[in-house]
Amino acid sequence: MTAASDNEQYVELELTPELHSIFMEIKDLFSVYISSYVHVLNKFIGILRKISTLRFERSTLIKYVKKLRFYNDRLSNFEFSDPANAECSVPVESVVREISAFYLKVLETIDILNYYLTRSLQSEIVSKTLNFNLTLPDDTISRIEESYNCFIKFVQWMMESISINDELLQIEIIQFSLKCAIEDNVDLEETDNIFLTEVTPVEDIEEYETLALQWSEVLSGSISALTNQFDQSVVVWIENSEKKANK
Amino acid sequence: MTAASDNEQYVELELTPELHSIFMEIKDLFSVYISSYVHVLNKFIGILRKISTLRFERSTLIKYVKKLRFYNDRLSNFEFSDPANAECSVPVESVVREISAFYLKVLETIDILNYYLTRSLQSEIVSKTLNFNLTLPDDTISRIEESYNCFIKFVQWMMESISINDELLQIEIIQFSLKCAIEDNVDLEETDNIFLTEVTPVEDIEEYETLALQWSEVLSGSISALTNQFDQSVVVWIENSEKKANK
Repeated sequence: MTAASDNEQYVELELTPELHSIFMEIKDLFSVYISSYVHVLNKFIGILRKISTLRFERSTLIKYVKKLRFYNDRLSNFEFSDPANAECSVPVESVVREISAFYLKVLETIDILNYYLTRSLQSEIVSKTLNFNLTLPDDTISRIEESYNCFIKFVQWMMESISINDELLQIEIIQFSLKCAIEDNVDLEETDNIFLTEVTPVEDIEEYETLALQWSEVLSGSISALTNQFDQSVVVWIENSEKKANK
Repeated sequence: MTAASDNEQYVELELTPELHSIFMEIKDLFSVYISSYVHVLNKFIGILRKISTLRFERSTLIKYVKKLRFYNDRLSNFEFSDPANAECSVPVESVVREISAFYLKVLETIDILNYYLTRSLQSEIVSKTLNFNLTLPDDTISRIEESYNCFIKFVQWMMESISINDELLQIEIIQFSLKCAIEDNVDLEETDNIFLTEVTPVEDIEEYETLALQWSEVLSGSISALTNQFDQSVVVWIENSEKKANK
């Protein structure tokens, strides 16, 4: 699975100024990812104020917004140890463990939110209001899933490419995919499922930097597509709620 | 607030066989805490099968159960480094950081679940079914809150008593309590709010062991009271659903 389980030699990597700067960039991307949810949920919560049948759903969404804002505040205050100021070298492994544990806390919360938002809530809106203008379009739901998968795969890569494979840092969707693949006898060498494709351990810090930079671009593209979809949904909600008010 | 911010001398503690064994006990208590939710939610999910108006709430609860089961599996597979087998001494700080990050991931999830279960869902059940026999009694809701507060305060103690005060390991309910206290000019020396009472740094490993053992007893008592309340709720739900079936 990883270098560790193959008993390959594991070389401890040290944080470089370049990697520090890429990690800071990716931290900002996580922050934008969280903010995009806070923004779209706040808009939706505003619209739900007028729809009394959805008042309990509204309060559930407010709870999520508070939690996401709290996470985002922590991330904004957090600083990676700067190798330029450190008295001794900073192991990449300890930095990655610390930030991965936090990212996974955020992502597992977003997983439950995504389920609530794109499944239970969508069905409930249609069932209670018969108003399809308040639901999320399929394209938005696909983007929500795509971005989530992208961030999950990034965290898996960030850890496993330097042979971190801790029990407490496992990810539900990946463990679930592996379990299903084993039950269904899926050939892990031939699968298209991104959660089943193996993470190759990096050879050195330069390779880790190059790949981290590529990940930063992938995450950035994924967030742009997501916020674009969220913005479109907000426009449709507002247009429809104004039309209704003018009737 | 803590030794670190008072600039006191910080002595690095090493994991002892005694502390290792107390940490294992507390890990088992966390596991029982998670299992108690899985158990009561599964019973409730079973009862909801017959109530079609609550089918989307049922699917939301199933999502939570899966997440909690996943967390519990990780915890069951996890082993603390055993100081008896370790080649060199194990710093308590690194063990506490690792397990606290995991406990907080679980507790922040339980916080959102508690809100959904004890607020939104309770109102929704009454609104949709007018059946108060399906709701949670006030005593159960109080116990849910009490246990949550107890586990949160324990994790805060476990970290702050050895001067761990990381940004990424902050806890929403504690930060929220502090923010409100500052806004309301609450005297932090005189407050009854357990989240505002200061954690005193320990002097040595013996004191940490003694207090950890006391915490283990407090957590154990809190879980017993909670599971007792959950069991009573299940009995009432089943009795009422059988009565209804026999009508």
